[in-house]
Parts: sequence; C-alpha cells; structure tokens
Amino acid sequence: RVTSAVNDALIERGEYDHFMLKEIHEQSESLARSIMPYINQATQTVSVPEAAETLFADADRAVAIACGTAFYAAFTAKYWFEQIARLAFEPDIASEFRYRRPVLPQKGFSLFVSQSGETADTLAALRYCRENRTPAIAVVNVPESSIAREAASIVPTHAGPEIGVASTKAFTAQLSVLAVLALSAAKARGHLLPGDEMNYVRSLLALPRKVTEALECAGQVREIARHIAGKRDVLFLGRGRYYPLALEGALKLKEVSYIHAEGYAAGELKHGPIALIEKGLPVVVVAPKDELFEKTISNVEEVRARGAEIILISDAAGIKAAGKRADHVILLPDGDDISLPILSAVPLQLLAYYVALTRGTDVDQPRNLAKSVTVE
Amino acid sequence: RVTSAVNDALIERGEYDHFMLKEIHEQSESLARSIMPYINQATQTVSVPEAAETLFADADRAVAIACGTAFYAAFTAKYWFEQIARLAFEPDIASEFRYRRPVLPQKGFSLFVSQSGETADTLAALRYCRENRTPAIAVVNVPESSIAREAASIVPTHAGPEIGVASTKAFTAQLSVLAVLALSAAKARGHLLPGDEMNYVRSLLALPRKVTEALECAGQVREIARHIAGKRDVLFLGRGRYYPLALEGALKLKEVSYIHAEGYAAGELKHGPIALIEKGLPVVVVAPKDELFEKTISNVEEVRARGAEIILISDAAGIKAAGKRADHVILLPDGDDISLPILSAVPLQLLAYYVALTRGTDVDQPRNLAKSVTVE
Repeated sequence: RVTSAVNDALIERGEYDHFMLKEIHEQSESLARSIMPYINQATQTVSVPEAAETLFADADRAVAIACGTAFYAAFTAKYWFEQIARLAFEPDIASEFRYRRPVLPQKGFSLFVSQSGETADTLAALRYCRENRTPAIAVVNVPESSIAREAASIVPTHAGPEIGVASTKAFTAQLSVLAVLALSAAKARGHLLPGDEMNYVRSLLALPRKVTEALECAGQVREIARHIAGKRDVLFLGRGRYYPLALEGALKLKEVSYIHAEGYAAGELKHGPIALIEKGLPVVVVAPKDELFEKTISNVEEVRARGAEIILISDAAGIKAAGKRADHVILLPDGDDISLPILSAVPLQLLAYYVALTRGTDVDQPRNLAKSVTVE
Repeated sequence: RVTSAVNDALIERGEYDHFMLKEIHEQSESLARSIMPYINQATQTVSVPEAAETLFADADRAVAIACGTAFYAAFTAKYWFEQIARLAFEPDIASEFRYRRPVLPQKGFSLFVSQSGETADTLAALRYCRENRTPAIAVVNVPESSIAREAASIVPTHAGPEIGVASTKAFTAQLSVLAVLALSAAKARGHLLPGDEMNYVRSLLALPRKVTEALECAGQVREIARHIAGKRDVLFLGRGRYYPLALEGALKLKEVSYIHAEGYAAGELKHGPIALIEKGLPVVVVAPKDELFEKTISNVEEVRARGAEIILISDAAGIKAAGKRADHVILLPDGDDISLPILSAVPLQLLAYYVALTRGTDVDQPRNLAKSVTVE
C-alpha cells in the first residue's frame, strides 16, 4: 500500500518541488477534512464517536502514548485536556511507556496517536493497555491500520497520504482531532459552557482559512531561513501550550536540515541551557499573546542581552507588544488557545523546509530516517 | 548566608582546582549523610518522616515538581515510584506546572525538589498545591528554606553547601532521598517484600563505597573528555531509569562546557534525531545491563553504523556484552535498579568537568548562570 500511495502521490506532486512543501500547503484541506466529521454545523457543537465520548465523563485521568512528532501532538493536547476539560492527562513516549510497567488509570482511558497506525512501540503500548483493561482511543491517519483495529474507539484524522518523511499535515490533523476530543471531554465533564463550545467550534471551522493566511508568511520565512542555514545550532522556546510546538519546531529542523536544534520550556532556560547562548545564536520563540506572553518575553530579553538573535512567531498583538525585542518576526493570524498552537506549526514547518532547501539536503528523504517506524 | 557559605567553602577547597571537582569527590560523604537518617540499621529497613509516610498508602497518584537538575532527579524517581511502589507519578517542570492550572491528585500528594529550597517557580507551584489542599513533601538541601517551611513534610538531603553552579552532589543526594521515599511508599502500599527491602537497604548503605569505586574512572574519563572537547555537539542516550540520567548528563555538559549536548530516550532516535548522526559525532550511552540493555544496544548499532563514536557508560556485564560495539567504555561498579542510576551520575559529572577544563571555561561560574534561580 505504501508503494502505491507513493506512485499516486508522485503524479500529484504538481507545482511543488517537494512533497514536504506540497503537504505544508495542503493543510487547509487536510484540516477541513479532519475537523468536519466531528462538528455538527447546525448546532455548532462537537461530536465524537460514542465509544470515545462515554469514556470522558467519569475518567479520573488519561495517558496518551506516541512517538516523535505524534508525541508532540499528544503533549499539546495535555494543555487542552487539563485546562479546558479539567482532566489529568499524561503524555508519554511509547518506547518508555511500554517497558516501564506503568500504572494505568483506574477509571480513565488511554489515547494513541500515530500517522501510520503501525508504529511498533505505540502498538505494543496499546496492547499493554488492553491487557490491563484500560480502554484505548486511537487517533490514526490510516483507519485500517493495526492500532485502529485494536483500539476500543477510532477517531481518525483525514490528512490524506503523507509522503514527506518529516510529518507536517498529519501533525496538524492530529492536533485538530485531539482538540475536538478535548472539547468533547470538557462538555462531558461539565466544564464547557454552550457559548464557549460555539466559540471553539467557530474557531475550528475557521482553521482552514486561517492556515491559508498563515502560509502568507512563506516569503518572509524563506529570508529568515537563508540566514539560519549558515548556523550550527538553533534553540526553540515556548511556554505552556507553545512548549510542545517549540519541541516540534526543533525536531522538524533537525530532521530535514541536520542542524542541531533543541526545544526548551522557556522557564527552564535559566536552569542551564542559557549557558549555550552566545552572539548570533538564533532563538526561535513561539509566543502568541496570551497570559504567559510577558513571562516568555522576559526570557527573550535575557537571551537577547547575551547576543542571541530572536525570531518571534506571534500574532499581531504579540508582535506589537514585543516591539524591538525581536530581531525577526513571523506573523500568525489571530486565534485562540486551540487554534493558535495549530497555526504555529505552519511557520515552523516552512522554516525547517526552507533551511533544508538552502542547505541542499534531501528534504523528502532525510538521511537515516524512515517514514514509519514499524520495527522497535 | 550564601556569602558566608562561599567564604567557608573557599577555605575548604583544599587540594581541588574547582568546587565542582571537589563536590563530585565529596559524594561518598554527602550520600552517606543523606541516606543514613532514613535507614534503621538494626532492622535493615527504610524509615521516613511519619508525615510523609502517611501520604503513601492511599495515594492514587503523585506529582513531582522541580527545575533543571532537580527536575531530572524527580524524573528518575518516576521510574522508582511506578515500578517499585506501583504509584502513578508525574514529574513536571515548575514553570510549566504552575501556570497550567494543573489537575491535582484527589487522594495523592505533591513532591518538591530543590537544592536551595528557594527556587521561585518551584515555590509558586508548592503554593498552588497548598491552596488546592494537596499535601506537599519537600526534598531540599536547606531545611530552613521557604519551600521547607511551607511543605507538610520535609525530607531533607544533607549534601552540605554546594558552591559549584552546576549541581553535582546535591543531585545524587536528591536521588538517594527520593529512592528512600519510593521504597517507603512501596512498603506502605504492600509492594515490597521484607527480603527485597533488606536488599535495597544494603544497596543504599553500599552507595558511599560504590561512589568511591565509580570515581576510579576519572583518569579514563579525562582522556575521553580531551577528545570530546573538540566537538561541537554531543548526544546522550538512555532508556527507562537511565533516560533522565542521559538528560542530566547533557545538561551538565551544556552548563559547564557550552557544547550543545542533548539527551534523548534511545527509543525516540529513529523518530527524528538520528538524522543528526554523522561521522565522528560522540554519542554517550548510559546503559548498565538491565532488561532494556539489548534494546539500547540495538539503537547504538544504528548510530554507530552511521559513523557515531560510542562512549558507553555501563557495568562490567554491560561492557562485556557490548563488546566492540562501543568505541570507549566507562566502567560502573555493580549495582541494582536504585543504585546504578545514582552511580551513573558520577562519570557524567566527571565528563562535563574534564571537557570544560580542556576547553578552559569557568567551571564553577559558567557564563549566564546563577546558583539559585530565586526570580522567575
């Protein structure tokens, strides 16, 4: 099946030089396809498969298991499940979870995120949960995959086949479906007012259009990328729901450009990594203007005072508030605590792509990497 | 108080060139001082303050909050609390935890780890838990500190004053006290057979002597360090209880040598970071021979096939089993699932120290860093 998908997609690469770029630009459609099945447009409410919904109301906690980029999607969902649905939610790396003999939720559920649905460690983790009678929800892009078949409930993404080895549209599709699940959990647990649900649904429905807006930063990102392409190291910083995005931005850059990029929680900087900061080190900061913005900007000031070059990814309000404290800015459309983390992924993907392009690496087939890790 | 401690300690630096090296070599004594108060030698059992012990039996889960190196101590404890005490245990970065409005355990407890007891984000997280009626246990090195004063139970480390900015003896002292707490929790929850408790107690009592043995690797580490000092990047890998040690090893090297080191769960390599591997990249692998050893060595083979230079930190059995798959080896004394993670810290600290020494950085006062982060 993989082979035939590659062949079909080769024909479809069309105007784009690489699948990665094509898939970044497809995110408007892949998000629409992934979100729509879970929205009731008449009532402006979210609606997920009943088998998943019934797990939410009485859950005491949840674990979410994945690898690589899918893990960062699960990690972002932690902030939504905890803040909006008031449910303790622990994301875990599959290769760690499966061998730790973890203590599972007594009245909760497990959630598995995988593009291929065949990731070996994630599948083994799912089997551990089944054996221990913890119901599993699968968020996969291939509904006939092993992980989908063995889960109690499948909540598929509809990103379409992803050919680029570095995941892009599958990641944002995962985020959008996890957001719907968090909202559904919030509703089931009595933490979501109908007016708030309607606002979130409108925000989700606006995502495909907003992604198109977000893609308008491409020219600007390309220029910044030319500059970064000559660097050896890059740091990515974020707080709260943007911390996992910083981790994913760093992973993306690593994967396709081979630059040593590392993501950090902005508040951890002072506890060690700030020693790395020297003149000219690029620091990418993901910080739309929210309740943590001033804290993040205060960390930015510290690294800038030590010579770092700040690339700020933020919304209009954030860019205005940061003023001259950013050396380069990348503008995101306006959004809320669900849409902005998803929108932030777009410039991070473009940045990795254009840095790789400048460096001349094999963007769609980075060295040493395979698309799906179906062995341990 | 800090000033006078510095003055006293200056007098005491003695034969050592730096406080960091002195404090690394003090770990035999600092561990003995930290462990002994919690061991009943007559009965060969662990014994922690009653206020802490009463929290263990009925706990449904625990959260553990810290920053920097102390966070990696808490992260290591996750493996002990989950595997030995069968208690769900979530470590969290204080600057993330405090602003997330986290969902706290209903019948559980919170644990705070801080050398100074004054870490601003950790203290704020403790206050959040108090306000929400989740009892707090403090593992601090300064018993009259703010965190100690505000906790329901204090279980102090007795590492003595730590002057080097990069934490060494405070870290292993934290690990030893967290190990005692995990054993006490295991006992309270009915998961520790008396014979197993006795074995663990013997292993803890042997730690000071084993640390002295572990320090014998210094000459060998110094040679490996001379080699690494010329590199720009280093990866640290571990699985299970050695994954947090890999993170701490990378942090230590970053802090004092300014080399961009990064720690990774070995099982995550294939999901992205393996793209970084190129000829001559040093990869430090923390892998005593345990149930995950073969998995880790299989990851080692993959990075070695791509030209990485493997520095294996392991016990005699692990070094023998790895054979020629390691380019350099650092020998640990024999131990168990509690003592070996603690012993692994020693060569990681020495490696960071000797790399920094070769590079000529200011080991005891690395650029940009302060000893305690008492502001946000």
